[in-house]
Amino acid sequence: MATLEDIGVSAAINILSAIAFLVAFALLRIQPINDRVYFPKWYISGGRSTPRSSGNFVGKFVNLNFKTYLTFLNWMPQALRMTETEIINHAGLDSAVFLRIYTLGLKMFVPVTIVALLILIPVNVSSGTLFFLRRELVVSNIDKLSISNVPPKSLRFFVHIALEYLFTIWICFLLYKEYDTIAIMRLHFLASQRRRVEQFTVVVRSIPHMSGHSVSDTVDSFFQTNHPDHYIGHQAVYNANRFAKFVTKRDRLQNWLDYYRLKFQRRPDRRPTITTGCLGLWGRKVDAIEYYEQHIKELDKLMSSERQKIIKDPKSILPVAFLSFNSRWGASVCAQTQQSKNPTLWLTDWAPEPRDIYWRNLAIPFVSLTIRKLIITLSVFALVFFYMIPIAFVQSLANLDGLEKVAPFLRPVIELKFIKSFLQGFLPGLALKVFLYILPTVLMIMSKIEGYIALSTLERKTAAKYYYFMLVNVFLGSIVTGTAFQQLHAFLHQSPTQIPRTIGVSIPMKATFFMTYIMVDGWAGIAGEILRLKPLVIYHLKNMFLVKTERDREKAMDPGSVDFPETLPSLQLYFLLGIVYAVVTPILLPFILVFFALAYLVYRHQIINVYNQRYESAAAFWPHVHSHIIASLLISQLLLLGLLSTKKAAKSTPLLVMLPILTFAFHKYCKSRFEPAFRKYPLEEAMAKDLLEKSSEPDLNIKAYLADSYLHPILRSFEVEEELVELERVEVRVDKHQTHHVSSPTLSGEPSSPSPPHHVHQHQPSPPHYNDYPTSPQDYYYQPPLPPHYVYQYHNQP
Amino acid sequence: MATLEDIGVSAAINILSAIAFLVAFALLRIQPINDRVYFPKWYISGGRSTPRSSGNFVGKFVNLNFKTYLTFLNWMPQALRMTETEIINHAGLDSAVFLRIYTLGLKMFVPVTIVALLILIPVNVSSGTLFFLRRELVVSNIDKLSISNVPPKSLRFFVHIALEYLFTIWICFLLYKEYDTIAIMRLHFLASQRRRVEQFTVVVRSIPHMSGHSVSDTVDSFFQTNHPDHYIGHQAVYNANRFAKFVTKRDRLQNWLDYYRLKFQRRPDRRPTITTGCLGLWGRKVDAIEYYEQHIKELDKLMSSERQKIIKDPKSILPVAFLSFNSRWGASVCAQTQQSKNPTLWLTDWAPEPRDIYWRNLAIPFVSLTIRKLIITLSVFALVFFYMIPIAFVQSLANLDGLEKVAPFLRPVIELKFIKSFLQGFLPGLALKVFLYILPTVLMIMSKIEGYIALSTLERKTAAKYYYFMLVNVFLGSIVTGTAFQQLHAFLHQSPTQIPRTIGVSIPMKATFFMTYIMVDGWAGIAGEILRLKPLVIYHLKNMFLVKTERDREKAMDPGSVDFPETLPSLQLYFLLGIVYAVVTPILLPFILVFFALAYLVYRHQIINVYNQRYESAAAFWPHVHSHIIASLLISQLLLLGLLSTKKAAKSTPLLVMLPILTFAFHKYCKSRFEPAFRKYPLEEAMAKDLLEKSSEPDLNIKAYLADSYLHPILRSFEVEEELVELERVEVRVDKHQTHHVSSPTLSGEPSSPSPPHHVHQHQPSPPHYNDYPTSPQDYYYQPPLPPHYVYQYHNQP
Repeated sequence: MATLEDIGVSAAINILSAIAFLVAFALLRIQPINDRVYFPKWYISGGRSTPRSSGNFVGKFVNLNFKTYLTFLNWMPQALRMTETEIINHAGLDSAVFLRIYTLGLKMFVPVTIVALLILIPVNVSSGTLFFLRRELVVSNIDKLSISNVPPKSLRFFVHIALEYLFTIWICFLLYKEYDTIAIMRLHFLASQRRRVEQFTVVVRSIPHMSGHSVSDTVDSFFQTNHPDHYIGHQAVYNANRFAKFVTKRDRLQNWLDYYRLKFQRRPDRRPTITTGCLGLWGRKVDAIEYYEQHIKELDKLMSSERQKIIKDPKSILPVAFLSFNSRWGASVCAQTQQSKNPTLWLTDWAPEPRDIYWRNLAIPFVSLTIRKLIITLSVFALVFFYMIPIAFVQSLANLDGLEKVAPFLRPVIELKFIKSFLQGFLPGLALKVFLYILPTVLMIMSKIEGYIALSTLERKTAAKYYYFMLVNVFLGSIVTGTAFQQLHAFLHQSPTQIPRTIGVSIPMKATFFMTYIMVDGWAGIAGEILRLKPLVIYHLKNMFLVKTERDREKAMDPGSVDFPETLPSLQLYFLLGIVYAVVTPILLPFILVFFALAYLVYRHQIINVYNQRYESAAAFWPHVHSHIIASLLISQLLLLGLLSTKKAAKSTPLLVMLPILTFAFHKYCKSRFEPAFRKYPLEEAMAKDLLEKSSEPDLNIKAYLADSYLHPILRSFEVEEELVELERVEVRVDKHQTHHVSSPTLSGEPSSPSPPHHVHQHQPSPPHYNDYPTSPQDYYYQPPLPPHYVYQYHNQP
Repeated sequence: MATLEDIGVSAAINILSAIAFLVAFALLRIQPINDRVYFPKWYISGGRSTPRSSGNFVGKFVNLNFKTYLTFLNWMPQALRMTETEIINHAGLDSAVFLRIYTLGLKMFVPVTIVALLILIPVNVSSGTLFFLRRELVVSNIDKLSISNVPPKSLRFFVHIALEYLFTIWICFLLYKEYDTIAIMRLHFLASQRRRVEQFTVVVRSIPHMSGHSVSDTVDSFFQTNHPDHYIGHQAVYNANRFAKFVTKRDRLQNWLDYYRLKFQRRPDRRPTITTGCLGLWGRKVDAIEYYEQHIKELDKLMSSERQKIIKDPKSILPVAFLSFNSRWGASVCAQTQQSKNPTLWLTDWAPEPRDIYWRNLAIPFVSLTIRKLIITLSVFALVFFYMIPIAFVQSLANLDGLEKVAPFLRPVIELKFIKSFLQGFLPGLALKVFLYILPTVLMIMSKIEGYIALSTLERKTAAKYYYFMLVNVFLGSIVTGTAFQQLHAFLHQSPTQIPRTIGVSIPMKATFFMTYIMVDGWAGIAGEILRLKPLVIYHLKNMFLVKTERDREKAMDPGSVDFPETLPSLQLYFLLGIVYAVVTPILLPFILVFFALAYLVYRHQIINVYNQRYESAAAFWPHVHSHIIASLLISQLLLLGLLSTKKAAKSTPLLVMLPILTFAFHKYCKSRFEPAFRKYPLEEAMAKDLLEKSSEPDLNIKAYLADSYLHPILRSFEVEEELVELERVEVRVDKHQTHHVSSPTLSGEPSSPSPPHHVHQHQPSPPHYNDYPTSPQDYYYQPPLPPHYVYQYHNQP
């Protein structure tokens, strides 16, 4: 039990470390050498092409303008300067709505904090059952400010209940307004978007196999019959998984080649060599550059033939297709309706953006999807409740006795007292950290197995899984002692009415723990986010070993993006804490307010200067956030019910029973009122845009516009490279509607091969690095939105 | 605890009473005078117009052909003679699928019974813990055949678990096949239907109010914009609730008028008189016939002006409309897509058949729907769990002391011993009976308040509510003693794992109770159903007092229909009992088999000869039946788990845990695999029918075909009567595609008034009583399907 002083000390430490991070950030960001780490967004959007520098040689790396050191906190007002509309244009709607969640938190908790502190603290303190107890008892000063201080059967509980009602109404009111605003923003965003391929495209899965007919024929005949006025064609999906492996391998080889070439360039007297054996430990010595050039050449031949095979072999066409329609209306109708008598065939849905597609999942058949869903649901359940078991197991292995058994030769070292205590304190914690660190990856893999075909959906599903994990392991796990599994066991053997009581009682006692949690995870964590230590280190490493050209340097930038799978759940956890403790221990609220304010500033800065979203889902994650906040309200109400029932407040408690029901009804209403705006595309909207377009561009060739927009990016990138051989050093204007091609020569000549059938050389506007051969699979999906009329000046510096 | 002998006696009594009912039915049905009670379907479908009779005067009323008395059970083979296709043509798909549920029950339980009896009875009996106990103990012979006889920790429980797996797999296999078959039947039925107005019609609710525009203009402009190629017009919905009241009143007066006219006809010497005061007790005497004629005349004037008002006043147009499309494809698209940016406006859905519409709910706005749903959900919950409380209260009032207090003058009578014991035994039971009797009505009213717009939906929702009631009050209520409310209380204070244990333990002990229940409610109840005592009495009463013409006699027929809200839930209860007891007390299974066989025969007979469905939902209720059977499987598995855990079968019990999960996954799969076939209309199907029709009838005027098909039936019936005045004694051929009008003069002249706007005098084929003024609100929806090429010969006998 921490006293107020303990909290003060903890707060001081965390505030200091947060400030240390912020100061470090402030100093690092103004160094020109770090410019691409802290302002990548401006490079990508074309607002900057070289670091700001003070001119001379040293000034290129270190900031010599000492005036800027004095104003090291000026990123904060800078971050606030952009309006919401500008942010939407600059970074997309996802980012803008993500920031709105923080302002929502502030709007929600500022009045709640004021009211709770002004009303509840006096009510709780003056009740004073705990004042007369001696200090030695397990009661902290914090508890004197909380509901624990109110004696049983007190009439004062009416105040708490009234405030719970008041807060619920206030939060619901804000949520309703917010949902409304975001739904309108979304529709407006979708309506004001320029023409995009996904508006005309529908993905169809589970295409039945007709013997004697190819997939393409089947699709064409089906949709020409059933959508005769709107269907104009389709784009087949090729099974390019083998090819993708080659691409990855080639990238690796290319990286090594670049590395050795650079090495040779710097020391032209010594030609670099490598040994060809396992891990470079033995085997014969060869010239490194020649070796890699040879290997790449071989691989290119393989890739070329593989590519031919993919495009010519009808077996490599998957039973999935992207259907093209001549109007948004036609696409909207096809996406929303059931096509076939057999509901497991011809499943149509909106096509995600091309860069949002997770290609590997496109071919999963319907039956398999059901089974996968079942297995993953069970696994998530197991993961959430049994996650601590393997950790505890590893921890028990990782202790010193275990270590000594495995590696007896280490005994003399371990027996040293200093090292022993360090290891004993460090190893179990490390095991936990490692497990928690890989958790989001594990959850993402699970979502991928579940078979969603869009990255945005994958991230949302991962976020949902992570939220359940946090709820059970962080929130409940901290309140009820014991592992989640023990809790599950206890809950299964308790009566349903006993559970909120058990938890409710321990809630006020855990306030101090959560305060510390907010400071460590929230304050210091957010300050760490802005420092970007990891990308900073990686960027400089890459810069040192791989970068030869400006283009390489651009590729070395890792702007990152808002990490929805991790940030959304932790954000929702703070909402949960705020809502639960609002009437129980209101002194916790200011901590949450500080978190929201700081995180708002930091993420605003990052979104403006750093992050580059990989896709645009037009705030599709909002309904989840909304329903999780509603869930928090329900949890807080149930826990208060449980808490009050132990306080024998029989007169007042029944008043609370209606609240969860009303809250749930509010949720149902919001769901039916707003959610369709996030799931469907209304025909009114589609028709309006169609008509507008018809009048402004009467002779648009939509078929040519859509051609090959959904070609697998691997095939596309390869093909683009072929073109690159022919086109040399061209500066091309990429603008809103004309989509000529941007390109530059690559370093190694590519074997040329014919284009895939029906390929029209017309591409969507995209920054050139998208069309280059990729360095990692992620890059296939990496195509940031461009501001309209953006002119890209290409600098090729060999 | 009943012994085997007790069960035998009970079985004998119930079998005897069931046989008595059947014999009574067999005797009554062959009397010509009852022909219209036991064979109304043939009159309606035109297969019969006068009773079969043996010729002479007495033979018109009593069957004198004594040979037929000997073969009094021959209705059974007769009932089995029709094939399924014939039944679909004769009575519709709903009835056919309803019968399939019984055959499913037989298919499911015949093998289960055989296997369970052959394997489990020896296993249970030979275990013999109970054999050595003395008879005085509370253990019946039945229990020796059940799982209770197996000693704790026995390895024999593996047999039970294996059989539970086997039965689950078998039932799931049957369910899958059945769902598949029924989905195909439904699609085939829908596909093979002749052209129907609902295929081209979509209902749109929540039409927004545009100031300065009428509802019609708003609808037209919206859909002409958003469905330009398919929308051809709409039919407004009038608020005719006041008019409906007049119609009801007029019917009542007409009935009295008919009664007095008949009275006068029989005794022309005495003109009937009535007194005009309250309840006919005082006031001045007037001539009855004149009095009613006068009143009807006045009412007709009122109705005429009201009707004018409805059709001319724009305010009587509700914000609901039936949209007409020029193709099934267009209607299907509009019904399945979201129209407006605001998801609470322009809600489109399939229009139900005209006769299936519940007109009163059409005008409910969206917000109100949410609130209604919440309130009704809470009420149903309260009703299910607190239903016994008011009954107990009334029972306590209805006992003798209460009665004496309320009516002291009755004391001398009550104090008589015979009457006292009779009342004491009778009154509380009566109270319970009355409450249970009104329950379906109460549930139907609740569903109506919830705001569904189709009678078929209303009935399905009522059935679902009734199922929950049965599950809690009959199944759980019988197993766990105490009222449902006490159970709820107990369950809330028990741990979730304790609940299946508590119930599981008492399950084998209640087998005898359920055997009696099956015999009383199932066997005797079904035999009572075929006897149709109530319609028999009512028909003869009406025949005596009201019937003047053949038409009246036809109206006096009450064919009824399958009472889905009551029969489906009780059917599902039998499935539940069978599945739960299959491994616990297999001796119960033969009782269920007898029920299914008998009920199958009875309902087959009724559907062929008696019932006349009010609407055709094309088996829309099947998904509910399916999921309730799955729920029964889950319940049985959980209860077996609970039961085994008390038997300390620690080795075998964990094997069962996977079963509920697999069953649930099977359910999810079935849902996504088949349910869309019951909720949506695939475009492939719609397009195929459109194309077929276009080639067979290239110049069909679909607009004229649809005109006024969705006019409120009250307005329609009134208007038809006007026509009747003009058209006299016409014999008209109603056949498949040509839809000329059938009519006959009415007895009283109707004031003539102009037709409603856009009215085209073209009607769907329908038997003439549909176009007559209705006798009860039910009649508005009463329009049986006609066999194709059916020629109706109208007999007017004034």
